[in-house]
Amino acid sequence: MTSIPTQTLTEALHWRYATKKFDPTKKIPAETWAALQQSLVLAPSSYGLEPWKFVIVDDPATREKISAAAYGQRQPVDCSHLVVFAGRKNMDAKDVEKFITHTAAVRGLPKDSLKGYQDTIEGSVERARKGGYLDVWNSRQVYIALGVYLASAALLGVDTCPMEGFDPAKVDEILGLSAKGYGALVLGPAGYRAADDKYAGLAKVRYPAQDVFIQA
Amino acid sequence: MTSIPTQTLTEALHWRYATKKFDPTKKIPAETWAALQQSLVLAPSSYGLEPWKFVIVDDPATREKISAAAYGQRQPVDCSHLVVFAGRKNMDAKDVEKFITHTAAVRGLPKDSLKGYQDTIEGSVERARKGGYLDVWNSRQVYIALGVYLASAALLGVDTCPMEGFDPAKVDEILGLSAKGYGALVLGPAGYRAADDKYAGLAKVRYPAQDVFIQA
Repeated sequence: MTSIPTQTLTEALHWRYATKKFDPTKKIPAETWAALQQSLVLAPSSYGLEPWKFVIVDDPATREKISAAAYGQRQPVDCSHLVVFAGRKNMDAKDVEKFITHTAAVRGLPKDSLKGYQDTIEGSVERARKGGYLDVWNSRQVYIALGVYLASAALLGVDTCPMEGFDPAKVDEILGLSAKGYGALVLGPAGYRAADDKYAGLAKVRYPAQDVFIQA
Repeated sequence: MTSIPTQTLTEALHWRYATKKFDPTKKIPAETWAALQQSLVLAPSSYGLEPWKFVIVDDPATREKISAAAYGQRQPVDCSHLVVFAGRKNMDAKDVEKFITHTAAVRGLPKDSLKGYQDTIEGSVERARKGGYLDVWNSRQVYIALGVYLASAALLGVDTCPMEGFDPAKVDEILGLSAKGYGALVLGPAGYRAADDKYAGLAKVRYPAQDVFIQA
């Protein structure tokens, strides 16, 4: 495995910003987009349950509807590729069964050999349900995928804009997500910044290291 | 800005796995660790509020206590660098005031010019508090940082293991986080896999693309 130089990483993460205005004429090349999709496929999640769907919205009319549900913000329309990050709602034992069946198949194991693991995961799911944090737990996993995607995009020279400013119920309705058992959490438009996006030139605001790190 | 080849990204993300056994003799070089810390500093968050603390735990005795709070798992002890990702609890108008003051200073703006922005953010914070999802909202931001960190580490050839399997109340107590207004969410040990970590060789389990992507 070839590592990248540290400077390449920090430069890319400095270059990244929440792009307010995408250039609608610039499209992400197919090979680059395929790699970004792979970053989502390969994102880690608790137990590997992948409690998510990534909706890739190409249809212009659907993008306009999502823009309207995002109070008229234009990134969902002007970006090259629009991903709606959705989280599993009300996960249950069937999700775990599906995961165990898939794990056994990928690893060439008898399913029975994973029974203890299945019980452990089901226990975690039921504890989360009884504790009232099942959907919260799964929503956090989606944000891991978001972080992986944003960092990956920056390293590939692709601009993004994580967006929470939208009406989730409307986006769920537009995309038919509720019926599938998922709920929209965050939008991840990707593409290329417009030459006149004034936000690109602003000084990056971050607290100094001593404010965010605690040594123990 | 120099982009990396798509293959470099996908290889690194394939190489990454949740390391169960770290080699305690291998330490992350200072320059590499500094870049990983930068990935945390530069991680995006809603409005840029950075509702987090990253606790870097070096003290061996403290690491042992955290291992005990994680049901005896050894990664917190054996890793090179241990980060405890903590989220802001019960954020209020003072957090927003601090953020606006800092933004004005960094961008050389009169603070008054950001009054509308400040009101918008305060409105979001108060809506989240009344809606009962304030801490959830902030916890999700921490998982963006986690995702950026895990991807960054992989690209730098550093192993990690995101861990939610611990007693948060105990870790909060060990690190004195509650008094600071933060709560531990996830552990992020980093270092290098032991030569005999059997998990390194297992086939990666991921649902096929058609299971996680929806085209719309």
